[in-house]
Amino acid sequence: MLTRRSTKLTHAGALAALAACVARAEAMGVPQCIAVVDASGVLLAFVRMDGARFLSNESAIAKATSAASTRMPTSRLPVDMEVKLALATGGRLTNLKGGVPIIVEGECIGGIGVGSGTGSQDLEVARAGLAAIGAEDQTA
Amino acid sequence: MLTRRSTKLTHAGALAALAACVARAEAMGVPQCIAVVDASGVLLAFVRMDGARFLSNESAIAKATSAASTRMPTSRLPVDMEVKLALATGGRLTNLKGGVPIIVEGECIGGIGVGSGTGSQDLEVARAGLAAIGAEDQTA
Amino acid sequence: MLTRRSTKLTHAGALAALAACVARAEAMGVPQCIAVVDASGVLLAFVRMDGARFLSNESAIAKATSAASTRMPTSRLPVDMEVKLALATGGRLTNLKGGVPIIVEGECIGGIGVGSGTGSQDLEVARAGLAAIGAEDQTA
Amino acid sequence: MLTRRSTKLTHAGALAALAACVARAEAMGVPQCIAVVDASGVLLAFVRMDGARFLSNESAIAKATSAASTRMPTSRLPVDMEVKLALATGGRLTNLKGGVPIIVEGECIGGIGVGSGTGSQDLEVARAGLAAIGAEDQTA
Repeated sequence: MLTRRSTKLTHAGALAALAACVARAEAMGVPQCIAVVDASGVLLAFVRMDGARFLSNESAIAKATSAASTRMPTSRLPVDMEVKLALATGGRLTNLKGGVPIIVEGECIGGIGVGSGTGSQDLEVARAGLAAIGAEDQTA
Repeated sequence: MLTRRSTKLTHAGALAALAACVARAEAMGVPQCIAVVDASGVLLAFVRMDGARFLSNESAIAKATSAASTRMPTSRLPVDMEVKLALATGGRLTNLKGGVPIIVEGECIGGIGVGSGTGSQDLEVARAGLAAIGAEDQTA
Repeated sequence: MLTRRSTKLTHAGALAALAACVARAEAMGVPQCIAVVDASGVLLAFVRMDGARFLSNESAIAKATSAASTRMPTSRLPVDMEVKLALATGGRLTNLKGGVPIIVEGECIGGIGVGSGTGSQDLEVARAGLAAIGAEDQTA
Repeated sequence: MLTRRSTKLTHAGALAALAACVARAEAMGVPQCIAVVDASGVLLAFVRMDGARFLSNESAIAKATSAASTRMPTSRLPVDMEVKLALATGGRLTNLKGGVPIIVEGECIGGIGVGSGTGSQDLEVARAGLAAIGAEDQTA
């Protein structure tokens, strides 16, 4: 089998996730940076909310990328591995809480990463994005 | 005078510009990468549409940054300067058509950059973003 | 609300902070690298004093950027987070003491970072910069 | 002879140059980014004036560094060499007008680079910095 059928997240899907994340963050009163990447870790959609930390642009993207790559929520790597893996990937693999893979019918089609709040706030916002596109939630 | 009053683009404004750009690109049938940056060139909002070229992620951001920095639409630099300026800024300053500054009441509060179509298509989409937020259009 | 009113630090303000930091460092007999960045972390003013460590160029800028992004003095992040956050931001987010946000009327308009002395000396010099521009001092 | 006596620019000298450049730029009504580097190309002093292009942070530093390295004003390299040299130095060597070496008693002790205006405006501002520290002016 030289090729196979696959599922892709559309920009409509990515923007729906973004909008749901923004709505949740506004409801929580916590401004956030929110990133959605595809299954190859390339950016699909992004927003930095008023008052969010601008350095969280980088960490939100790293969280989305890490979740899409590992197909797991971030923060589940063994603690003794996280610095080594970050260094070996130029900082792209992070274990900071707030990244979730986008899993649809068992296939990982991307990741959502959120940063600027506490790790728990970041994760709550990211999960709102999963719900908006009907993806599995491995953190539920 | 140690400080001065100024205007900032909100994330609501950035997302309104993004949505208007996407709508225009869909109407044209040309998928695009669209970036909105703040007055210091830091990313505020982004989307890559289905079928858009993924390397245009970089050029769309460079166009938005360049327009925000120069306070002019891109493609207006003298041709003999454009490579030197790109090299002296690590590629961040580009003269590719498709970037516009966001000017509100005479102040530059950011930039919009669009890439993946022809230069003219990119510019047309970027201008739709300006209209959505009531900014001046120096290319009209 | 597509835009909002805001405050910016002028170069006169940034240079006034720089001069006050230099004066304090000279009075202490501790040469320093001193950086002032805007609200998006872009450099506004900088000086490296005679005898200061040249690698502190980088750390002073990182401290200023970190304080501007988090809106808090540096060194207040949880210890178990600091390496992960540094790695996820390409080293731009540092928890080294000596960075302070510039808060004017409740709004963060930039940051000051100082490096080349001990953390306490760095902070003392940075605070002199805040006083010069009448900004709040969260470390007082 | 294993070592030799040399002259160094102090931070007082670098700040005097910076202040003279700012004064000239204000008199011209052209906001500028102004960088002063030492004989090794490491940043000594910097300011970005209100309204200056933020991407000129990079080019001003490149101009100062290039002038300090070549011990010549920038823009004197053969045109057919400038892109090759820029590429071979990661963009640090630029031939853009606006950089001058700081030559005192025949020794190059640093460089001044100015960017955000036209090349001629940039050079005029840089020369004001040389005058303030009594350095030779090879462009006179």
